[in-house]
Amino acid sequence: MEEDPGDALAGRLTAGGHELRQRVYFEDTDFTGLVYHARYLHFMERGRSDYLRLLGIRHLDLAADGIAFVVRRMEIDFMRPARIDDVLTIRTGPRGCSGARLELAQSVLGEGNRVLVSARLVLALIGAAGRPVRLPPALRAAFTAAPSPDRADAGSTAERSA
Amino acid sequence: MEEDPGDALAGRLTAGGHELRQRVYFEDTDFTGLVYHARYLHFMERGRSDYLRLLGIRHLDLAADGIAFVVRRMEIDFMRPARIDDVLTIRTGPRGCSGARLELAQSVLGEGNRVLVSARLVLALIGAAGRPVRLPPALRAAFTAAPSPDRADAGSTAERSA
Amino acid sequence: MEEDPGDALAGRLTAGGHELRQRVYFEDTDFTGLVYHARYLHFMERGRSDYLRLLGIRHLDLAADGIAFVVRRMEIDFMRPARIDDVLTIRTGPRGCSGARLELAQSVLGEGNRVLVSARLVLALIGAAGRPVRLPPALRAAFTAAPSPDRADAGSTAERSA
Amino acid sequence: MEEDPGDALAGRLTAGGHELRQRVYFEDTDFTGLVYHARYLHFMERGRSDYLRLLGIRHLDLAADGIAFVVRRMEIDFMRPARIDDVLTIRTGPRGCSGARLELAQSVLGEGNRVLVSARLVLALIGAAGRPVRLPPALRAAFTAAPSPDRADAGSTAERSA
Repeated sequence: MEEDPGDALAGRLTAGGHELRQRVYFEDTDFTGLVYHARYLHFMERGRSDYLRLLGIRHLDLAADGIAFVVRRMEIDFMRPARIDDVLTIRTGPRGCSGARLELAQSVLGEGNRVLVSARLVLALIGAAGRPVRLPPALRAAFTAAPSPDRADAGSTAERSA
Repeated sequence: MEEDPGDALAGRLTAGGHELRQRVYFEDTDFTGLVYHARYLHFMERGRSDYLRLLGIRHLDLAADGIAFVVRRMEIDFMRPARIDDVLTIRTGPRGCSGARLELAQSVLGEGNRVLVSARLVLALIGAAGRPVRLPPALRAAFTAAPSPDRADAGSTAERSA
Repeated sequence: MEEDPGDALAGRLTAGGHELRQRVYFEDTDFTGLVYHARYLHFMERGRSDYLRLLGIRHLDLAADGIAFVVRRMEIDFMRPARIDDVLTIRTGPRGCSGARLELAQSVLGEGNRVLVSARLVLALIGAAGRPVRLPPALRAAFTAAPSPDRADAGSTAERSA
Repeated sequence: MEEDPGDALAGRLTAGGHELRQRVYFEDTDFTGLVYHARYLHFMERGRSDYLRLLGIRHLDLAADGIAFVVRRMEIDFMRPARIDDVLTIRTGPRGCSGARLELAQSVLGEGNRVLVSARLVLALIGAAGRPVRLPPALRAAFTAAPSPDRADAGSTAERSA
C-alpha cells in the first residue's frame, strides 16, 4: 500500500468499467440536509479520473502534452438524495468513442446499491488552443479494451445483478 | 442600496425571466486554466435563487414550511469555456410548470453575450418527507405571470423542440 | 455599467482598503443550516481579488508573467454564523508589506455590520518555480498608497497591534 | 468490506490520533495549477469527521440531539503546494479539551510525508440555539483515551508552544 497509495484509493476496474467508493462529508451537503446537487458531478468526476488512472492515463501526462478532457454534455437524473456520512458508489462505464468524443454512463449508488443519480456524458479531448484532438490510439485502445457496454452495470438505473 | 442590499445583488427581472451577473474567481477554476464544469451549476443555482427572490420566494420561508426545491433533471451543454476574472451573465427563464414540477431554461453567457453553457432543468418542490408537494398557487401565479417562454432569451441557443 | 461590468461587481475602495458585498447561496451552507467554515475563505479570496482588481492588478496579467499570489498563513476567528440568503460584507485592508510578503486583515460582516469572521493573512508572491518573488514596485506602491492601516476598519475586532 | 464500507474509507486510529489518505482531484485545484488554499480545510474536515467516526461519534447522532461541532479558530500555515493526482495524508491529533472546547492539531502531508499544511484548531460543541454545550462525558473520555499529545506525530512540524 505504501508503494502505491494511489492505486489503493483509485477504486477498481469492473466488468462494466470502474467502481469507486466515496464518503459524503460536510462540504457535500447544504442547508436542506441533503447533498447539494452539483456535488454529484464532483463525485462522478472523481470516478472518471480514477477510471482513467487505472487505465494508465494521468491528467498530468495529458497536460504535459497540452491536452485535457472536457465535458461537452451531460444528462443527469437526480432520483434520490444522499445525506451526510453516507458511503456512495460511483460507477463509470464507456458507451462509445469516436474521433475526439468519448461517451460514458455514470451512476451514483447509495445504500443497498439503490441508484441515486444517473448520468450520460459526452467528453471531448481538446488541445492547447481549445480545439478537439483525436483520441490517441492508446486511449482508444484502452476504452475499446474496456469491458463491453453490453454488460451495462453502470448508469443504467436498473437490471444490476452486481 | 443600503436599505435593501439583497435586491441590489439579486440581478433583475427581464422580459424572458431573470438575469444575474457573476464574477469568476479562483475557486471556480481548475488546473486546466478553465472554469471547472460543475461550477456552472453553482452559477445557475445562484441565478435561480435570485430569480425566486425577486418573485418574492425565499428559501428560508419555504424551509420554515418544510418544503424545498430540488433539481430532478438537467441537460447541460458546455459549449465554450470561461476563465478567471471573466464576468458571466446567468439567464433563467420559465418553460412550464405542472403539479409539483417546474421547468426552466438557463444559460451562462460570457463576453459579447456568447453562450458558454446552456441547460434545461426540471425542478420539483418536495416536502419534509421527500414527497412531491404541489406548487402553491402564489408560486404558480408568479411563474405564469412571468414573461412568455416565446420570448426565449434564455437558454435558447438550441431551439430545442423538446 | 455595460461598459465595465467588472468594476460594477468589484466592490469599492474605502478609507481602510476595500469592501465587497456577496450573497450566501445554497453552495455555501451545510447540513447544520449554517455556512460551511471553509466557505468564508472563498468569500475573503473574492474580496482580495477584487481589491487587487481595483488597484489595477489582474490575476491573468500576473500569470502571464509566471507569478501568482499564494496564501502563506491565516489566523481565523469564526465568531458568529451566517445563513442562507444572508448578504455579507467582506472588508480587506493592508497591514504591511516587505520583500515578497504582504500582510492583510480581512473580516466578514453580517447584518448590522456585526463581525462574523475575522482573519489575519500573510500572502507571498511566487514565481513559476514556486520561489518567492519581490513585490514589484507598482504593487508595493499600490499598497503603500492604500489608506493607512491606522484607520483599521477591516478585520479589527481584535485590536491587534501586529 | 461490504459489511462496513464506511470504516474501510475512514482512515485509521494511530498512536497520535488519526490518519486519512485522500486524493487530489480536479475540483481541488485552481488555474495556478496548485490546490486552492481553502480546499485544505476540506481535507482537514474530512480527517476530523473520520477521526470522530472511528471514536464512535457520528454527525447525524449529534444532530439528532440538536448539537454540532463548529470551528471557532484556526491557525494555518501553508508551506508547500499539492497538485492534481497527489495522494495526501491528513493527520489529526487532540491537543486538549475543556468545557465546550476541543483543541486539535492537523497536518496535510504529501509525498515522502513532507508537511504541506499545518494547522491548530479550536472546535466548540454548540446546541440548537448556537450556545456552547459541554462535551458529553463519552466524548471527553474518547479524547482523553486518545493517545497522548506528547506523541505529537500530527501537525507538529512547528513545536508551537502556543
